[in-house]
Amino acid sequence: MPVAAPPPAPARLGESAEADVPDVGAALHKLVAEWLPFRRGLTGAGLREQLLAISERVPMRISEVPSGTKVLDWTVPKEWRVREAYLAREDGTRIVDWADSPLHLVQYSVAVRDTMPLWALRAHLHTLPEQPSLVPYRTSYYAPTWGFCLTHDALDALAAEIGEGGEVRVVIDAEHVDGSLTMGEVVIEGETSDEILFSAHACHPALANDNTASLAVATMLARRLLNGPKRRHTIRFLFAPGTLGAITWLDRHHADLGRIRHGLVLANLGDAGGFTYKQTRAGTLGAPLAVDRAVAVAMRDLGRDVDVRPFEPTGYDERQFGSPGFDLPVGRLTRTPHGEYPEYHTSGDDLGLVRPEALAASLSALEAVVDVLDGDRRYRNTQPYGEPQLGRRGLYASLGGLPEGPAAQQAALWVLNLSDGTRSLLDVAERSALPFSTVRAAADRLAEAGLLVAA
Amino acid sequence: MPVAAPPPAPARLGESAEADVPDVGAALHKLVAEWLPFRRGLTGAGLREQLLAISERVPMRISEVPSGTKVLDWTVPKEWRVREAYLAREDGTRIVDWADSPLHLVQYSVAVRDTMPLWALRAHLHTLPEQPSLVPYRTSYYAPTWGFCLTHDALDALAAEIGEGGEVRVVIDAEHVDGSLTMGEVVIEGETSDEILFSAHACHPALANDNTASLAVATMLARRLLNGPKRRHTIRFLFAPGTLGAITWLDRHHADLGRIRHGLVLANLGDAGGFTYKQTRAGTLGAPLAVDRAVAVAMRDLGRDVDVRPFEPTGYDERQFGSPGFDLPVGRLTRTPHGEYPEYHTSGDDLGLVRPEALAASLSALEAVVDVLDGDRRYRNTQPYGEPQLGRRGLYASLGGLPEGPAAQQAALWVLNLSDGTRSLLDVAERSALPFSTVRAAADRLAEAGLLVAA
Amino acid sequence: MPVAAPPPAPARLGESAEADVPDVGAALHKLVAEWLPFRRGLTGAGLREQLLAISERVPMRISEVPSGTKVLDWTVPKEWRVREAYLAREDGTRIVDWADSPLHLVQYSVAVRDTMPLWALRAHLHTLPEQPSLVPYRTSYYAPTWGFCLTHDALDALAAEIGEGGEVRVVIDAEHVDGSLTMGEVVIEGETSDEILFSAHACHPALANDNTASLAVATMLARRLLNGPKRRHTIRFLFAPGTLGAITWLDRHHADLGRIRHGLVLANLGDAGGFTYKQTRAGTLGAPLAVDRAVAVAMRDLGRDVDVRPFEPTGYDERQFGSPGFDLPVGRLTRTPHGEYPEYHTSGDDLGLVRPEALAASLSALEAVVDVLDGDRRYRNTQPYGEPQLGRRGLYASLGGLPEGPAAQQAALWVLNLSDGTRSLLDVAERSALPFSTVRAAADRLAEAGLLVAA
Repeated sequence: MPVAAPPPAPARLGESAEADVPDVGAALHKLVAEWLPFRRGLTGAGLREQLLAISERVPMRISEVPSGTKVLDWTVPKEWRVREAYLAREDGTRIVDWADSPLHLVQYSVAVRDTMPLWALRAHLHTLPEQPSLVPYRTSYYAPTWGFCLTHDALDALAAEIGEGGEVRVVIDAEHVDGSLTMGEVVIEGETSDEILFSAHACHPALANDNTASLAVATMLARRLLNGPKRRHTIRFLFAPGTLGAITWLDRHHADLGRIRHGLVLANLGDAGGFTYKQTRAGTLGAPLAVDRAVAVAMRDLGRDVDVRPFEPTGYDERQFGSPGFDLPVGRLTRTPHGEYPEYHTSGDDLGLVRPEALAASLSALEAVVDVLDGDRRYRNTQPYGEPQLGRRGLYASLGGLPEGPAAQQAALWVLNLSDGTRSLLDVAERSALPFSTVRAAADRLAEAGLLVAA
Repeated sequence: MPVAAPPPAPARLGESAEADVPDVGAALHKLVAEWLPFRRGLTGAGLREQLLAISERVPMRISEVPSGTKVLDWTVPKEWRVREAYLAREDGTRIVDWADSPLHLVQYSVAVRDTMPLWALRAHLHTLPEQPSLVPYRTSYYAPTWGFCLTHDALDALAAEIGEGGEVRVVIDAEHVDGSLTMGEVVIEGETSDEILFSAHACHPALANDNTASLAVATMLARRLLNGPKRRHTIRFLFAPGTLGAITWLDRHHADLGRIRHGLVLANLGDAGGFTYKQTRAGTLGAPLAVDRAVAVAMRDLGRDVDVRPFEPTGYDERQFGSPGFDLPVGRLTRTPHGEYPEYHTSGDDLGLVRPEALAASLSALEAVVDVLDGDRRYRNTQPYGEPQLGRRGLYASLGGLPEGPAAQQAALWVLNLSDGTRSLLDVAERSALPFSTVRAAADRLAEAGLLVAA
Repeated sequence: MPVAAPPPAPARLGESAEADVPDVGAALHKLVAEWLPFRRGLTGAGLREQLLAISERVPMRISEVPSGTKVLDWTVPKEWRVREAYLAREDGTRIVDWADSPLHLVQYSVAVRDTMPLWALRAHLHTLPEQPSLVPYRTSYYAPTWGFCLTHDALDALAAEIGEGGEVRVVIDAEHVDGSLTMGEVVIEGETSDEILFSAHACHPALANDNTASLAVATMLARRLLNGPKRRHTIRFLFAPGTLGAITWLDRHHADLGRIRHGLVLANLGDAGGFTYKQTRAGTLGAPLAVDRAVAVAMRDLGRDVDVRPFEPTGYDERQFGSPGFDLPVGRLTRTPHGEYPEYHTSGDDLGLVRPEALAASLSALEAVVDVLDGDRRYRNTQPYGEPQLGRRGLYASLGGLPEGPAAQQAALWVLNLSDGTRSLLDVAERSALPFSTVRAAADRLAEAGLLVAA
């Protein structure tokens, strides 16, 4: 009965570093701290560094797709390589320096080497006047330009110091060269080729919640699944840059997408806010899909609120998975969604924003979702006329002996009543308001007793 | 126009004893008082006594199914015969005696003749510490054991009197013998073989609301239907022990169940609480069935609130009718459901709990439900293009002359508009918020005028 | 791109009288004032006068259907011609006179020339005791009778003056003669024969809101559509007497009704109350139809509340369009519905009840509904796998340059995502909560760029 097994305890993590940390939240926070500084981007060295760091913990297949490759309606871009980038005073002292933080340079900026007065430079400076102590995160992947990001306080101080006519030295020693786009996949083989897909974007540099936290949670989830019993589903983790990564992966796997039964885009899994779930496209346009329902049931069973929102074609890579040609059953789990916390896409999205207990709860929630999706099954009641006599089969005692006791007996009646071949255990868990694990355990007992057969 | 006829007035009950009582609630309460003491059980003499009492009022077919007969997944049990059962002090004075109340003995207890200290006897004593003056009702139909039920006060007094070491004489002179399970059916033939089924469990001894009250209400309903005009539906009343009675009846009628168009399990119809309706299985899993909708409309028309609840596979015999193999259109009407009033399954479920006005209201509600189910019909408007001119057919005057006056004219417009062959008068009553009886009367006038034909 | 064009500005009205009035509300109010006195009726001169007045502003086809013609279940009645009608004192002074107001005479009264005491006359007098200063509006189209309507104050004064025995001279010089029923149609040819139908009853004499206001609004709407760009839909306006007009028109056009894709009955469009929309029959019995949804979206986009109500078979001519044989997609737009304002069907429904700003808002609402219905379209996304790259097609800039800017970019993503051939722009406007005009504009840009093709 592999599906009914409880999730592997942390002790089973084995020889990994995290296993030494008794508190999984602390272990996850440690990973975030370790990975936060990587200079991730749409392509290039920082992204590869991140993928390698993940692959130290779980076996990963890394693919490289060359610049210039046509992928769906797009083209894999050149790699961006930066050697140095800074603004300096006439005396050479640095005002902002990319070496201090990758956020200081607009991602994908073209090369510049110039000197110009502050007033002319302003068109290339990005600050947040409403949050004057934070550095914004800016990209310009598809339009060739350049710019620097700094705190508004720093800009004001500079203006006071040198005036609008003061000259500033601008150096961006960068180039866009033929290279490749890098993607990493972790595949945990299951009993069947039916897949659950988890996808986390890996292109945001130096931001903790968006999306280092999700990379850490996904990695830990993959480890646990690897160390746990074999699941019915094959479970795939995709770590790739946002938008273009998903597009490239979809382009390369077009023929195999039918095996994806359920999926979740993972983002912002570390902040202290509650969970937010964005439904699949098909689940919003029609009736909720299994993954939409599994998230709701898992959260209910964990006693956690979840803010369920309909699909919309903006956001993270659910946009690509949910494009009308693919229409994949992929929802999105976040804590606070993008744009809804003040530190979003700023230097304020730092280690302090990410909480150990939030990371741990995100991991537990994902494990519970996997348990529901993987444990869901359709059965046919072999004694559908009237209630079967549970007592003479020893089932009242057997069910009553489960930790859930009376709830398991109730669950058995529900499973028997709804198992007409069209409804699954997830239906039972929804209608009965009983925990999915109780329903699953009751179904196992009934199946052992021959009262259920797979439908 | 048989279906549109008003329910027979109490005066039409004829020569019956109840007919002499001007107040139907008082008549019903008198029946409950008369029947309450019967020592009903899963099988045996008390059950037969109850069925005979009903058959004095309505012609009943009584069936006996021998012990040992396989019925669905079950077996008809042996009959339980008790000659005497008591607990006595060493001096022979009785502590509790089955002769005083059948509740004192756990139903289906095996024979015992022994003397034991109070501390050892405690494992066989059932009390209600939270309701110390009430005797609980307990059964052990499917596990051979024995026990006595008494008030917690009496147990405390006994312990104070004789101490834990005090010896108690235990006598249960009972046997389980081959016999039969008894069921009674009252069938009121209608114009068609389409059936409405009412089912009330008849196995609980000495409890007034659960279910003597429903036996009385069902009997009176059957009398009234017998004395009233012929209905379109054949109406069947099943009086049988809970669970095993329904299972046995279903087993014996497997091939004929297709004629059951609508049904209601009746329970707890005497207490002062409001009505609770439990939907049919199919009506909960899909859209509400006719009986589900008829109960709602009948209650609305009577100005009574009803708490409508979804089907669940626990409760009374709707569990069996609603097992997935049968999936019959059978709901359940109660006042306060089992387990939701403090006197449930205790000696507190006595005559005082059952109110004449509640019994009368339950009867009226069931009559209204029958009127809706039996009066519902699909028609086709013969002048579906534009409104037919009611005035030149004398229908405005004819409808305006009905007691419902303007409402009947409105009802006529609704019936004409919705009678496209797919919708019934129940649809009209729901959408128009007009009383079903008004809708039915308007349809009769329209049919007489040739504006409607049966669809 | 004809459908995306903005509605013609008032200045394009050209040489019309209204064009000189800068305020369209004032222009509409002027029309109501001009048309209010017409002695409209089910047939006859007043109705023709009204239709001719409309035909001075928009080209109208006027049809006459002879008395006695069978139309559906009805017969075209005779024309009612009144020469004079009054009540007079014995000295010849007039008490009430039809010449002062058509409301004073029950519509379709038969001829009378008699003298009778006040007490005997009372059976033929109609007043409103609760609204003693108002004259009621009464008709008796289908039962031959006669009567006068006056204020309750006037009746009381008369009784005080002459006593119940006082003699009153009754003169109704009227006749019912073979003639015809008159209907007017304004048809604005579109690119296709698919039709939007607007229908306004034109039979109520001397009432401003019911329905002179709607006649004025519909006429102005027709003018604007005539002067505007060609629409995809042919748009038909029907001006005819209530009930019998619709029935006659339906009878005459039975074979052509399939071209009616959407329709609205227009009534009471001048009072200061909010909008009330009554759904189509099919939209109430099933899922809302396009016109039901278009009204909701148009009102939302205009920032106006609308009270949406289900179809019922009472009201105005939606009763006929929504009879089960026709079941046309015709809803009804009013401000305050009939019977829900105290001046309804009384002399209080006068020019003061009708507000210029309400008339103007009604016109704007109808224009917005036409824009939605005519601009709605189904497309197929030609790049449905992943998001197409808008940037390299210049679409981000092009969409960003629209007045709606970022909303237009969002709208483009929504249109691309939902354009799978089964969903239309109305679906997009509903789900995205973006204005329909923004969605329409975005779709135009996408279609120009080849990313959408008609589905």
